[in-house]
Amino acid sequence: MTMTQPTPPSTANLSIAQYLIQRLSDYGIEDIFGIPGDYILSFYSELEKSKINMVGCTREDCAGFAADAYARIRGMGALCVTYCVGGLSVCNSIAGAYAEKSPVVVLTGSPGLKERAHGALLHHMVRDFKTQYDVFEKFTIAGTELSDPLTAFSEIDRVLDACDRYKRPVYIELPRDMVHVVPKIAHGYSGAVHQNDPAATAEAIKETSLRLADAKKPIIVAGVELHRFRLQDELLAFAEAANLPIATTMLGKSVVSERHPNFVGLYEGALGDQEVTRFVEESDLILLLGAFLSDINLGIYTADLDPTKCVYATSENLRVSHHHYQNVELKEFIVGLNTTNVKASTREIPESIRSGRVRTPSSPPTDDGPLRTSWMIRRLNDRIDGDTIVIADVGDSLFAATELTIHDRGEFLSPAYYTSMGFSVPAALGAATARSDHRVVVIVGDGAFQMTGQELSTLIRYGHNPIVIVLDNHGYGTERYLHEGEWKYNEIHPWRYGELMKVYGRGISHEVTTETQFDNALQAAWDTPDQPHLIHATLQENDASETLRKLAKRMSKTV
Amino acid sequence: MTMTQPTPPSTANLSIAQYLIQRLSDYGIEDIFGIPGDYILSFYSELEKSKINMVGCTREDCAGFAADAYARIRGMGALCVTYCVGGLSVCNSIAGAYAEKSPVVVLTGSPGLKERAHGALLHHMVRDFKTQYDVFEKFTIAGTELSDPLTAFSEIDRVLDACDRYKRPVYIELPRDMVHVVPKIAHGYSGAVHQNDPAATAEAIKETSLRLADAKKPIIVAGVELHRFRLQDELLAFAEAANLPIATTMLGKSVVSERHPNFVGLYEGALGDQEVTRFVEESDLILLLGAFLSDINLGIYTADLDPTKCVYATSENLRVSHHHYQNVELKEFIVGLNTTNVKASTREIPESIRSGRVRTPSSPPTDDGPLRTSWMIRRLNDRIDGDTIVIADVGDSLFAATELTIHDRGEFLSPAYYTSMGFSVPAALGAATARSDHRVVVIVGDGAFQMTGQELSTLIRYGHNPIVIVLDNHGYGTERYLHEGEWKYNEIHPWRYGELMKVYGRGISHEVTTETQFDNALQAAWDTPDQPHLIHATLQENDASETLRKLAKRMSKTV
Repeated sequence: MTMTQPTPPSTANLSIAQYLIQRLSDYGIEDIFGIPGDYILSFYSELEKSKINMVGCTREDCAGFAADAYARIRGMGALCVTYCVGGLSVCNSIAGAYAEKSPVVVLTGSPGLKERAHGALLHHMVRDFKTQYDVFEKFTIAGTELSDPLTAFSEIDRVLDACDRYKRPVYIELPRDMVHVVPKIAHGYSGAVHQNDPAATAEAIKETSLRLADAKKPIIVAGVELHRFRLQDELLAFAEAANLPIATTMLGKSVVSERHPNFVGLYEGALGDQEVTRFVEESDLILLLGAFLSDINLGIYTADLDPTKCVYATSENLRVSHHHYQNVELKEFIVGLNTTNVKASTREIPESIRSGRVRTPSSPPTDDGPLRTSWMIRRLNDRIDGDTIVIADVGDSLFAATELTIHDRGEFLSPAYYTSMGFSVPAALGAATARSDHRVVVIVGDGAFQMTGQELSTLIRYGHNPIVIVLDNHGYGTERYLHEGEWKYNEIHPWRYGELMKVYGRGISHEVTTETQFDNALQAAWDTPDQPHLIHATLQENDASETLRKLAKRMSKTV
Repeated sequence: MTMTQPTPPSTANLSIAQYLIQRLSDYGIEDIFGIPGDYILSFYSELEKSKINMVGCTREDCAGFAADAYARIRGMGALCVTYCVGGLSVCNSIAGAYAEKSPVVVLTGSPGLKERAHGALLHHMVRDFKTQYDVFEKFTIAGTELSDPLTAFSEIDRVLDACDRYKRPVYIELPRDMVHVVPKIAHGYSGAVHQNDPAATAEAIKETSLRLADAKKPIIVAGVELHRFRLQDELLAFAEAANLPIATTMLGKSVVSERHPNFVGLYEGALGDQEVTRFVEESDLILLLGAFLSDINLGIYTADLDPTKCVYATSENLRVSHHHYQNVELKEFIVGLNTTNVKASTREIPESIRSGRVRTPSSPPTDDGPLRTSWMIRRLNDRIDGDTIVIADVGDSLFAATELTIHDRGEFLSPAYYTSMGFSVPAALGAATARSDHRVVVIVGDGAFQMTGQELSTLIRYGHNPIVIVLDNHGYGTERYLHEGEWKYNEIHPWRYGELMKVYGRGISHEVTTETQFDNALQAAWDTPDQPHLIHATLQENDASETLRKLAKRMSKTV
C-alpha cells in the first residue's frame, strides 16, 4: 500500500487553489513546469506566492516532458498551463507519460463558470467547454473539473491518489472563478485505500516460491515499474537473498545499478547482446517484474520467452504460466517472495556477461577518425559516474546508449517505449530541476534537437550546466535504415547548433568531426562543470549502431 | 453548392495511397507539410513519387499551423505525420483550425492491421489502437480509418467532401499495411450532394430584402467565413449593387480589400475605433455575414448589437431578429439577396471612417525615440502593398496590427479567435508555400517566437525570404496588462534572436532599439527581397497599443 503524509485535518479558510498547492507539496512536488495564460493567471499568482518554484518553459509540450522526467526522478511531477491552447499542446507529452507510466499532474485553467453563461464563443474554446476534458480522458488515469466547492477538496484527493497509485498522469481543471473560492466544509485527507487481495497474493507468492525452489536456472527480468513504484530496494533484497541474476529491459535500464554483482545486462531478444539473450532464454524460470512487453522492449518480438516458464508481474497484472491472479500488488508480491526465504539454485553468471564488464572497451581517439555514435558512447562510458544522469533521445541516441554502464539507479532516462522524438532536452530540464547536484548529459539526434532544442534556453536561464551532444547525420537517420531508398524526406536543414549558445547567452560550443576533437570536447565539458556545453558532432556518413542495424533488419519488413 | 472536379471514374489499379493522393490533388493541394515516422514511411514514399511537394518541418505542430495557413489561402491544406507521437503533437494546431474554420486534412499512419494481432504493446501506442482516432473526433468534422479496401475510396471521398463543405479539419488514418492495397472495386467519385432548403432560402431572402428596402442606415459586418467559402466576389457584388457600407471583424480582417470604397473599418465594440463602433451600432439593419460572435471578435462582449436589428448568417446558422431558418447555405443567401435587386438607402460614410483614410498617420522616426508597437505598425503600413501578406501572432502583435490597411483580400492572417501563441512563423511557411510570389511579413512577440521560431529554419531551407519582426518586451506582455502585479512568471529568457540567422545559415539580422534603427532595418528588408530578414525590436518598457489597453481594462475583471 502506498502511503502519503496526510495533510492536517483542518482546511479552514483554505481556498481551492491553496488546498491544491498544499496537496501537491504533500507528494513532494517542489517545482512545477509551465507557461502562463489568461485562464490560469490567478492560479499562477497563487503558485508564485507559495513555496512551490515555477519553472517557465519555452513551450507547453516541453513543460510536459520536463514534468515527466521530474516525476520519474522524484515520484511525482506537475505542469500548469492555460486552457486549450496550452492544454492541447501537451497531449503528446502526456500520452507518453501515460504509456510509460510516469505520474504527472496536468493542471489547467478554464473559463470561469460565470463567463460560460454568455453562450458566445470564448477565445481558446474549440467545440464546447468540455473538449479539453474529454481529450485528456484518453490518456490520464483520473480527471476532475473543480467546479463544485463542496466536492473540490475530495476530488483533489481522489485524483492525486490515483496519480500516486497507478503512476499515470492525471488531469485537474480549475475554472478561473473557482481559484479563490473557500469551500464551507470541514475536510480532512484520510489517506488512500488500495485494494489488495490477501488470499490471492498469498497463493501467488506460494506458487512462485515453489517454482523458484525447483528451478535450476532462474532469472529476474526487471522492468521500469520497479523504478516508478520505488521497489528497487525490495527487488535487490529479494534478488540478493534468493541469489538471482537480474537482467533489465531497455525501458527499465538503470532500475538497478549496472555495477551490481547480480546484474547481467539488457535483455532485448535478437537485438541485444547475444550472450545475455541466451542466458535469459535458456532459463527455466523467468520472473518478469514490472516489465512492459512492448515491441521495442522485446526486440521487435524477437524475444523468445516460453510463457509456461514465466511469472509476469506488473502493477496491473500477475500471470503465472497461463493463469492469472487479480488484485495482487507488485510490492506485496516482491516483498512476500522475499519473506518465504526461498533459495534458488545458485546460477553461475558467465564471465562474458558479468556486471562491470565492458562489452567493447573504448578505443583511444585517432586524429582523423570519423565519428561513430557507438565509439562516442564508449568514451562517454569511461567518464560517467554516480553523479551523472544520462538522457537519451529516440533513435540511435537510444540504441547506442543502451551500452552505457549506469552507476546508480534511475540515472538513465529515455522514452524507450513511446519513443517520442524531442524528449531529451526538455527532460534534461526536469532532471536538472529534480536533482540539481547531478550533471545531466543529453544524447540527441539532430532531428529530435530541432523539435525541442530551445528548452536548452530554459536550462541556461535557471543556471543548469548540462552537456548536450547533438549527433548530426543531417536527418532522420533511423528512418533511413528502416525503409529502403534514398528519400529526400529524411533530410533536414543543416544548423550550426553551436551558435545557439550565443542566442541563449551562456555556454560553450564545440564543433567536432573527428575522434580527437570529440574527446577534447568531452574533456573540456568535464573540466568546466560550471558551464553548459553543446557538442555538435558530425557523424560518419550512414553511421549506425549494431542495435539499430539489427532493429532495421527486423522492422523493415513491416514499415 | 460547392463543386469540385470529379476524378475520372476509372480507379482501376490505383492503390489506396494513390487514390488518396489523386483526390487531394483534385482539391488543389500541391504541397503537404509534415514529419515522417516509421508508421507513415510507405505513404511518404508514395507522396515523394507523386507530383505533390513535401515540405519537411522541424516539428509536427508547426506543420499543423503551416497547413492551416496554406488552407486559408488555397482553400484546402494538408499535413502528414506518424502515429501518436506525430498525431498527438498537432492537437493544438488542429483544434485551432477547427475553431477558426480552416479546412485542413490530417493524414496519419498507424500500425498495420496484421501487426495488431500480436496483442503486445506497439511503440507509440498510448492506450489502445483507437486512442488517436478518438482524440481527433473532438476537433475534426469527419474522420476515417482506411482499414477496409471495399470502403476506402468512398471514405476518402466522404471525408474530403466534409472538409470542403464545412471548412473544418478532417482526419484520415492509414494503417501501414493498407498503403499499397489495390481495392477490387470499380469506384467513381460522383460529387458531393449538399442539402439546401429552397423554400426556406427563398423566404429568408425575401424577408431580408424587405427589411433592407425599409432600412435607413443598413450595414454589412463581414466575417471570416466569406474568405473561407470564397464568397468575397458575391459579397462585393451585392454590397456594391445595394450600396451598402462594409465593416469587418478582427478575425475577418482582410476579407475585403481595406481600400474598397464601401469599407469603413474593423468593428470591435468598445475596443475598436469609436467612430466605426458608433457607425455600426447606430445602424437600423446589420447584416452579419459569415462572422463569429466570439469574445475577442466582439470586443470582450462590448459589442452592442440589438438582435432585432440583425440578420446573422453563417455557414451553420441563419437568424433574422429572433427567429431561425435552417438549411440555408451562406452562398445561396448572399447571391439570392443580390438577385432581388434591392436598393438600400444610400448611407453617407463620414469622412473620418472612409476607406483609404489613415487613422493615425505615421510620424517620421526620431533618432532616440524608443520603440512602440503602434508606431512600428504605422511605418510598416506605409510600405505594404498588394504583394505583401501580413501574419500577426497573438497579443499586441495582433491588436496593433489591426490598424494595418490591407490592400488585397486574404492577405492578413492571424489566429484572432483561438489565439494560439506561436502561430505566425509556421503560418508564414504555409503562406510562403501557398503564394511564393508574395512577400510575407510576420509580426510576433518574443514569447510566441520562442515557441515555434525554429520554423524560420524551414522557410530559409526552402528559399523563402520573409521579414520577421520580433517584438521584444522580455516576456508575456499581454498578461502583464490583463492581471495586475509584478509577476516573475511573465518574464522569459532574453535571446539574441538575430544570432539565429547564423544557426540557420542564411539571412540578415537587425537589432533595433530606436525608431531610426527600425526604419533603416525595414528599408533594408524592402531593398533586399532576396534575403530573409529578422528584425529584433526591443520595445519601450510597458509598451501597449490602445487596443490592448482597452482590452485589459475590460478583461482584467474576469482574469
